[in-house]
Amino acid sequence: MLANLTIDNGRLWDMLMETAAIGGTPKGGIRRLSLSDEDRRVRDWFRRECEALGCTVHVDTAGNMVAIRPGKDPTKKPIAMGSHLDTQPTGGKFDGILGVLGGLEVMKTLHQAGYETSSPVALVNWTNEEGARFSPSMVGSAVYAGVYSQAQMDAYKDKDGVTQGEALDAIGYRGQEKPGSLGFQAYFELHIEQGPILEEEGQTIGIVTGIQGIKWFTCTILGRESHAGTTPMAYRRDALAAFAEAATEIRKIALDHGGLATIGIVSAHPGSPNIIPGEVRFTLDMRHHQDAELKHMVTKAKVAIAEASTRHDAAYTVEPLQDSPAQPFDETCIAMVRAATEKLGLKAREITSGAGHDAMYTARVCPTSMIFVPCAEGLSHNEAESATQADCGHGAQVLLEAVLAYDARG
Amino acid sequence: MLANLTIDNGRLWDMLMETAAIGGTPKGGIRRLSLSDEDRRVRDWFRRECEALGCTVHVDTAGNMVAIRPGKDPTKKPIAMGSHLDTQPTGGKFDGILGVLGGLEVMKTLHQAGYETSSPVALVNWTNEEGARFSPSMVGSAVYAGVYSQAQMDAYKDKDGVTQGEALDAIGYRGQEKPGSLGFQAYFELHIEQGPILEEEGQTIGIVTGIQGIKWFTCTILGRESHAGTTPMAYRRDALAAFAEAATEIRKIALDHGGLATIGIVSAHPGSPNIIPGEVRFTLDMRHHQDAELKHMVTKAKVAIAEASTRHDAAYTVEPLQDSPAQPFDETCIAMVRAATEKLGLKAREITSGAGHDAMYTARVCPTSMIFVPCAEGLSHNEAESATQADCGHGAQVLLEAVLAYDARG
Repeated sequence: MLANLTIDNGRLWDMLMETAAIGGTPKGGIRRLSLSDEDRRVRDWFRRECEALGCTVHVDTAGNMVAIRPGKDPTKKPIAMGSHLDTQPTGGKFDGILGVLGGLEVMKTLHQAGYETSSPVALVNWTNEEGARFSPSMVGSAVYAGVYSQAQMDAYKDKDGVTQGEALDAIGYRGQEKPGSLGFQAYFELHIEQGPILEEEGQTIGIVTGIQGIKWFTCTILGRESHAGTTPMAYRRDALAAFAEAATEIRKIALDHGGLATIGIVSAHPGSPNIIPGEVRFTLDMRHHQDAELKHMVTKAKVAIAEASTRHDAAYTVEPLQDSPAQPFDETCIAMVRAATEKLGLKAREITSGAGHDAMYTARVCPTSMIFVPCAEGLSHNEAESATQADCGHGAQVLLEAVLAYDARG
Repeated sequence: MLANLTIDNGRLWDMLMETAAIGGTPKGGIRRLSLSDEDRRVRDWFRRECEALGCTVHVDTAGNMVAIRPGKDPTKKPIAMGSHLDTQPTGGKFDGILGVLGGLEVMKTLHQAGYETSSPVALVNWTNEEGARFSPSMVGSAVYAGVYSQAQMDAYKDKDGVTQGEALDAIGYRGQEKPGSLGFQAYFELHIEQGPILEEEGQTIGIVTGIQGIKWFTCTILGRESHAGTTPMAYRRDALAAFAEAATEIRKIALDHGGLATIGIVSAHPGSPNIIPGEVRFTLDMRHHQDAELKHMVTKAKVAIAEASTRHDAAYTVEPLQDSPAQPFDETCIAMVRAATEKLGLKAREITSGAGHDAMYTARVCPTSMIFVPCAEGLSHNEAESATQADCGHGAQVLLEAVLAYDARG
């Protein structure tokens, strides 16, 4: 039987606003780059809060902080919650932070009720999720999951040439434990959606079923540069005309497959109003939550580029730039989030995450799922990022219910 | 009755190669910017050659050089030939030069035969056709036709701040005569096509019926910038998707109307692989030899941009950048060029000029037409610009025939 515990959304909101002052910007956002002094300050705050609840705060060699609240059975691995407290240079008050502070509110609720879980409950603050100061992103959870080595993580440099290892040492958050050595039974991450779906549909909770696969390409169409006034349409090898046809077709492919396709960069060369472009370069970002579908989409997109190029007697190249496979979440974890929304009577829908999250890496080593709440106009990585107190509270309540349900399954 | 005079294509070719050394580049092209020392040297050469044929060389205040060979009837206005001897910074050996030296070859043929025309025959070297050093282009013929004033021409500056008037004075080619004061009965200009049609069709002569109207626009499509991973296709306001559809439709419009449409510049903003472009900026160049058709094409292109924008919930702007009306040539002059090709048994077709030429301005003040000869691969404004000795000769022969035919009509 599950306890009827209720989180305090006012207390959660107060924590969000209190910590937003650490690196707070005049426009209401946060600048709290990974391993900066602001990051150190919010980590110190987080450690104090967790210790005040009787948690033990472990810090691993990647700087990941794991606060553990003991359960009745010390032989069980912890059920974990978490996200990150670092932000983009002009970040908002919710991306990542809601997942950590929502978890802290769960801890406070358990503590206040004196509720004893069977398994220990863990709350993680992952190092450098954003990748804004040190690229790549999600490095703390990647080292945790064994995707990168500690040495790789340490070697990445910021633009001033400071290594991530040096910065970690400098703020005093290099722990002794080996990342991943604690091990989790499961991992739940609460996050703002960072997209418009929940808000547009009037949903309160997104039951996240996985993270989309992403493939990036740089593409070139090579026609023939010629004079816009003296080259009849029939004689043209217009790279821009081929590009336009391919772009329209690629959009249709994404729609047909229920995936996403984006051309974010395009340039025509030599770039003069009266010269027919001999070359067009562009990027292609394709995403789908199923790798097989994504592969089909990419195959069809290449055909679309090839056919459009052929129609205009042009050559083309499609070079892979990035490839991140789809990461489905654990069915049991997903079911517990769904059950929580049903129990609470919250409007909810299944959703896939278009962005990467630490949960993408934890999913490789333990059962994982995520909980999304709406954010205003889908805006994120922006100082104007916004979510309501009520929605943040609903998200934290679902997080609590999911953790307790996972704990109750024994 | 017309004389059976034949130009010497070897002599013409030798003149082309001899003068190509004045500003000749290592890659076989010419750098002979308007009013440069190289321009002065070729002008000096041109004056000497014309004077050696008994011509009087007039220089007007715009620096236009007009060599006049007297006719039997001094009350008649001259029948003129001409083009320009200045080049692009990395120009070829034929653009403009063929028209002047082809005319000079006509003069030499008349002189050698001792042939007396009824009307005087004039040969013009127009100042600054290319517009490469001082913009705009075709300024000498424009002042001749009263399109620009002498003061306007003098005031244009090169990138070093030297005015066109100063440069004209500096090379000693500021004459006393008022541009246009001589007056021409007719004007014929021989030129390389600068496009691929004649070569591709195996034609020797293009009977040029006019110069296309040109309209340039700068366009913007304004959608909404958003995250490529978290924004479903249905929620996007993708400026690039709207652009692609509009571009394809605009191409169809040009094909339907027998005109030309070129998008030479395009950029997507903010310009990141994983951000859906909120803004796309592009140029649009539309051309047709009939102004009414060009107007229809532009109207339909605006509708295409509007409809594509609407489909993607985007706004748009279309701002005029340049507008040059179509310039049809004189029916009589055209007929004389056609008759010459028939007499000579040369493969010929009617063609409109996609590029501007001095003939565009002379056509405003006297009966005008042009004669095109093929150039290799349609290449021009390029050091690799190329035409054959035979084709240059055929062009000069047609020029001679047309001038004599015009003279014979009395």
